[in-house]
Amino acid sequence: MASAAGNSLLQSVRQIFKYLTSGPGFDKVMKTARVVSAEPGRCKFEMKVEPDHTNRGGTLHGGLTATVIDTVTTAALMTAEGGSPGVSVDLNVTYIRAAKEGETVTFDGRVSKLGKRLAFTTCDVTNESGALIAQGRHTKYVGGS
Amino acid sequence: MASAAGNSLLQSVRQIFKYLTSGPGFDKVMKTARVVSAEPGRCKFEMKVEPDHTNRGGTLHGGLTATVIDTVTTAALMTAEGGSPGVSVDLNVTYIRAAKEGETVTFDGRVSKLGKRLAFTTCDVTNESGALIAQGRHTKYVGGS
Amino acid sequence: MASAAGNSLLQSVRQIFKYLTSGPGFDKVMKTARVVSAEPGRCKFEMKVEPDHTNRGGTLHGGLTATVIDTVTTAALMTAEGGSPGVSVDLNVTYIRAAKEGETVTFDGRVSKLGKRLAFTTCDVTNESGALIAQGRHTKYVGGS
Amino acid sequence: MASAAGNSLLQSVRQIFKYLTSGPGFDKVMKTARVVSAEPGRCKFEMKVEPDHTNRGGTLHGGLTATVIDTVTTAALMTAEGGSPGVSVDLNVTYIRAAKEGETVTFDGRVSKLGKRLAFTTCDVTNESGALIAQGRHTKYVGGS
Repeated sequence: MASAAGNSLLQSVRQIFKYLTSGPGFDKVMKTARVVSAEPGRCKFEMKVEPDHTNRGGTLHGGLTATVIDTVTTAALMTAEGGSPGVSVDLNVTYIRAAKEGETVTFDGRVSKLGKRLAFTTCDVTNESGALIAQGRHTKYVGGS
Repeated sequence: MASAAGNSLLQSVRQIFKYLTSGPGFDKVMKTARVVSAEPGRCKFEMKVEPDHTNRGGTLHGGLTATVIDTVTTAALMTAEGGSPGVSVDLNVTYIRAAKEGETVTFDGRVSKLGKRLAFTTCDVTNESGALIAQGRHTKYVGGS
Repeated sequence: MASAAGNSLLQSVRQIFKYLTSGPGFDKVMKTARVVSAEPGRCKFEMKVEPDHTNRGGTLHGGLTATVIDTVTTAALMTAEGGSPGVSVDLNVTYIRAAKEGETVTFDGRVSKLGKRLAFTTCDVTNESGALIAQGRHTKYVGGS
Repeated sequence: MASAAGNSLLQSVRQIFKYLTSGPGFDKVMKTARVVSAEPGRCKFEMKVEPDHTNRGGTLHGGLTATVIDTVTTAALMTAEGGSPGVSVDLNVTYIRAAKEGETVTFDGRVSKLGKRLAFTTCDVTNESGALIAQGRHTKYVGGS
């Protein structure tokens, strides 16, 4: 991909992300995340664990981890050729390590397959050392009603 | 269970829920939910879908569904004999129907088994007609470090 | 449901199960299972844990548990009004207790929703005491290609 | 890793695999699979889809896919420093494409983290073109009782 095209895709994802997270809906819970890269079928977000991202133990809340996985995999799907956001069918997350307040966490969403009806995605969540925090998969329905 | 004991368990869960959701952490995203019942190993929350619970399509956000499933199953675990909140290991959610803004949704968390090391829970999410919105399971590690 | 209709549904499921498990394919691994009940959207199998069902620890093999969950939920789907076997999308299993050789295990498959495109099912696996051995969910695509 | 050590690890995994699949237990259902590589924390199996691996549609049975994912991730765990087979906790599989009778399928099992109590693994299943057939994760308990 030419870097101009790549740059333009990144700008598009950033605009969509800003639109979503500055609205009244639930997506605003991750508005401090940053879209760090976007290519067809793959998208990465970075997020510093802030106090309002934590559980009672002071680490990244598992519900927020699931929320960002949902969003970054949807973003990856939208960057794929012919992609669309679709509707969630199945989401699973395995929690591997805690991420403390102040740590920066990367969410790497990728499309495994974008079919006519169903889309399959994965997300690895890592800390600054590259160690896995969590892994998830997200299956979406992308066909018409 | 005597109704006095049942009542006392419900009051305890309500106090814990208020404590969690009025703090600075992520749990505040579900502070409008209501603990409607609690018995040993089972807990129900009700939540009206408000604008700040929705996705761009105006329905309950899948990330919030996952977050409330995480919390209500943890609450069910805490009400079980010898229960403790534990740490998340695996969480999965299947999204069955959309819940629109204004609908009231019930999250029914139940403990399948509380072992020495691992605890297994489920959650059915239903709308006012009793139709399933989502189903999830949450496995937690409850042993010492 | 009239008992005659119920009886006829049970006979149908038994015939299909016999057809599947007496063929050359993989389904024959569960041919000693018995269809114990069938009603619209729900089906139960019973299976005694035989030596060729076990893992190296002498208990029910997790792969066979997953295989029977796949089949009993598909059977439940076929008994539902307008049901069809469909194609697997997501299958998950949580392993809660071991089942030893010689124990009889019940697989209770139920349809959560049968839509135009997607079908959602669950399965609880219990031992003779009614204690949970495993729990699973199985999402299938049932629409046309 | 020196190639002598790598070769020796591969030989060990092959011996264990032969031991498991030539016994009376369920593992014999995959005895035609071949261990093609083994390194610390990662193991690959190849399997040609034979008639007795198929579902009624003539493609690789989802229950067998789950069974091989269970085994190859356990093999990957056993090749890790300090690894042991452990006990299954959660297994999930997403079915992405069918694999027809006669196709050769590769199962690539990897350890995401091996902790004191819990081990986390993944498996990608691909066809001869490298396209994804399925993806799974397998969480195991590896601590003492």
